[in-house]
Amino acid sequence: MTNKELYEKAKENLNKKVTLQGWVRNHRKQKEFGFIDFSDGTCFKHIQIVYDNKLKEFDEIQKIRVGSSILVEGKVVESPKEEQPFEIQAKKVELLGDCPEDYPIQPKKHSREFLREQAYLRPRTNLFQAVFRIRSVASFAIHDYFQKNGYLYVHTPLITTADCEGSDQMFKVTTLDLNHLEKDEEGKVDLSKDLFGKGSYITGSGQLHGETFALAFDKIYTFGPTFRTENSNTKTHANEFWMIEPEIAFCDLEGLMDIEEDMLKYIVQFTLDTCPDEIEFCDKFVENGLKDRLEKLVKSNFTRITHKEVIDILKKAKIKWEFEPNYEEDIAKEHEKYITDYFGGPVFITNWPKDIKAWYMKINPDNKTVAAVDLEVPGAGELMGGSQREELYDVLVERAKKLGVDTEAVSWYLNLRKYGGCVHSGFGMGFERLIMYLTGIENIRDVIPYPRTPGNCDY
Amino acid sequence: MTNKELYEKAKENLNKKVTLQGWVRNHRKQKEFGFIDFSDGTCFKHIQIVYDNKLKEFDEIQKIRVGSSILVEGKVVESPKEEQPFEIQAKKVELLGDCPEDYPIQPKKHSREFLREQAYLRPRTNLFQAVFRIRSVASFAIHDYFQKNGYLYVHTPLITTADCEGSDQMFKVTTLDLNHLEKDEEGKVDLSKDLFGKGSYITGSGQLHGETFALAFDKIYTFGPTFRTENSNTKTHANEFWMIEPEIAFCDLEGLMDIEEDMLKYIVQFTLDTCPDEIEFCDKFVENGLKDRLEKLVKSNFTRITHKEVIDILKKAKIKWEFEPNYEEDIAKEHEKYITDYFGGPVFITNWPKDIKAWYMKINPDNKTVAAVDLEVPGAGELMGGSQREELYDVLVERAKKLGVDTEAVSWYLNLRKYGGCVHSGFGMGFERLIMYLTGIENIRDVIPYPRTPGNCDY
Repeated sequence: MTNKELYEKAKENLNKKVTLQGWVRNHRKQKEFGFIDFSDGTCFKHIQIVYDNKLKEFDEIQKIRVGSSILVEGKVVESPKEEQPFEIQAKKVELLGDCPEDYPIQPKKHSREFLREQAYLRPRTNLFQAVFRIRSVASFAIHDYFQKNGYLYVHTPLITTADCEGSDQMFKVTTLDLNHLEKDEEGKVDLSKDLFGKGSYITGSGQLHGETFALAFDKIYTFGPTFRTENSNTKTHANEFWMIEPEIAFCDLEGLMDIEEDMLKYIVQFTLDTCPDEIEFCDKFVENGLKDRLEKLVKSNFTRITHKEVIDILKKAKIKWEFEPNYEEDIAKEHEKYITDYFGGPVFITNWPKDIKAWYMKINPDNKTVAAVDLEVPGAGELMGGSQREELYDVLVERAKKLGVDTEAVSWYLNLRKYGGCVHSGFGMGFERLIMYLTGIENIRDVIPYPRTPGNCDY
Repeated sequence: MTNKELYEKAKENLNKKVTLQGWVRNHRKQKEFGFIDFSDGTCFKHIQIVYDNKLKEFDEIQKIRVGSSILVEGKVVESPKEEQPFEIQAKKVELLGDCPEDYPIQPKKHSREFLREQAYLRPRTNLFQAVFRIRSVASFAIHDYFQKNGYLYVHTPLITTADCEGSDQMFKVTTLDLNHLEKDEEGKVDLSKDLFGKGSYITGSGQLHGETFALAFDKIYTFGPTFRTENSNTKTHANEFWMIEPEIAFCDLEGLMDIEEDMLKYIVQFTLDTCPDEIEFCDKFVENGLKDRLEKLVKSNFTRITHKEVIDILKKAKIKWEFEPNYEEDIAKEHEKYITDYFGGPVFITNWPKDIKAWYMKINPDNKTVAAVDLEVPGAGELMGGSQREELYDVLVERAKKLGVDTEAVSWYLNLRKYGGCVHSGFGMGFERLIMYLTGIENIRDVIPYPRTPGNCDY
């Protein structure tokens, strides 16, 4: 029986014999008694195992060290302690896998920096039990939301030769032997010898491929790993992360915002419902007020405001900005914070200056802005970015050329506008940013099982 | 309203006005009437739109070509045709996005080879509407199964420097400029200049990382893309594919088979329940008897038999084999087929000769075989491969060294056996193979949205 099953059916099992297998998180020994803080990792709560010196293996049991795996047979009994609904009166405690004295994870507070160096053991700590459970549950919430709402899940390719977002931001992949590269007549590496017969990359987005499916299935989403080569060592950058990219046919910018808001509330509510103990823990030990913030989000109405209006508000504010707000430019972190504080909740900012946004976004009638939208949330800044896509072939091609996109390589994408094209929109959400928002964790390295950052690809 | 919603609530909507947006799949014109075969891709079934010359745009509507996107306003009425529960009597048909005469996807049978070349348009055909819907639904079934059963979903890293399965089978990833590689003192490429400071790869398996989470969360699964550099152009090989890799602590080989059987039946039943029209179509146009085969699987008991027993049976069979069955060797495709026919259903083959299996598999007491299991299913051959993992540190290290594994690079993995190790097991299932099994499709290129095979990385 798992810890989770036992907690779910604690009453039915009272005074019954159960067999458990899991790990010793802590072990307090007294002369006649011993208490094992026990967990098999199936739920956040631990179980207290009590044994006494009537067991003939008492002395052996007392030697069991923290980190060891054990098998426990015992009776479920009511606990004298208020904070636990039951405990196990052990009839048998058997050592399955020993653990040495110098085991790095001891029942004390370890710094997150230390735990990053023990990446393969940190899932055994309370903090990472909470974080990675929330990560798993939020993943499922996303699938659940989209599948219930009739979206198709698409596995867009990771390896690509289409140089859409700029290959300088993409990892090259190759099967060639780097130490023995053959050159072509021009003295360049002969990529025709590579497995795909040309240079290939791992992608930074599945959007373009996603659009081809939206124009066949109406509503689709992707959810998969994404890569950026950014040589940036900040709390919010990783070179490998997961992204969700929904794309919806016959949907304009207003419709897109409806979906973003509905989806986010669903995920947050689902996580609150499924992970109460984990959220409680994060609220207590990671970010005070986390739970309240999440509950508030579900009930709130998201503000919708244009980029121009945002700049107006920022300019009127009696604050000495580090970065002066500008109608032609992106907004800075300090502005994001001010705006979400100003409205006391999440804010959709729409209609951005076209020069700072991507080539595939729909040009507005003013010919100055694009129908793009960023969602800013209190505490985490930009959580999603989306846009209506340019559905007019000529306009799109002109803009692509202007911005140096290889229109030949993406001719199939452009063709979508020729073959029954339609108004359509999509957005991207960085999954790690969502998990940081759901847990209060401030460093992206602590929400990814094995983070990859510049100079750091251990394990 | 989407097609799906309309089909789900056809009766409630009878005689009501609805607005639909989608694409023209076919268009039959008569003097006084027109019939548009209409689909928005949200469900497999199309909708018939009927319009007549009482509409003042009648002549305009008649010009609408196959592939165009349209908006339809009309009344839901009972259909005179038996095979459709309703049709739409159009009050308005508006062209949203035109489509030229030479649109590649016409209402006729296209060969799958042709459609592979039109990869971005083939999702608009009935076959690929069925295949990719089944792919999406089966994905969800997998998440649903594991989440309901208390497993943690883990995103194991794709970029890795741990050379576990042999780097010759892995793609190298780099941010270095291949045309200007700096060399170190030994004349080799200086990988310390690369983003991670050393050579890195995209992984062929998340298993080793998965095990570290199983020993913290008890039951985990991965579901993500995987890569192999195999230069092989067969119907069953792709260089990029998706894998599911569950890993379970305190679980032996028998327990593992229970899980594999239970999971597969769940996925198949879920797909049968959720995609009746798609399965029906595949049964009719891809593989006759498909539905029956799937329904039979759910009700069957999977045979469990050792590799030795399989070879005994094969040797006794009065068949002239192309490959002679051998107690020391793997079995061939012809043997797999014979065995599943022999038992009339899925067969677990256990206890394989250790010399043909991986280094991390549990050595059996006979010291000749390992506690590995392959699941063979009628029609698709090997669908899953798994094993109990060697949990004894010394035995594992010795075997790793013998097989040339860099024990330094995987010391963290080996350490799992030191720090509260336990009996544990896991398996891998190639997702595309599952989809081929669920649809009857014989070529892996036809179950992947944008397949990557040697020399083929278009789109």
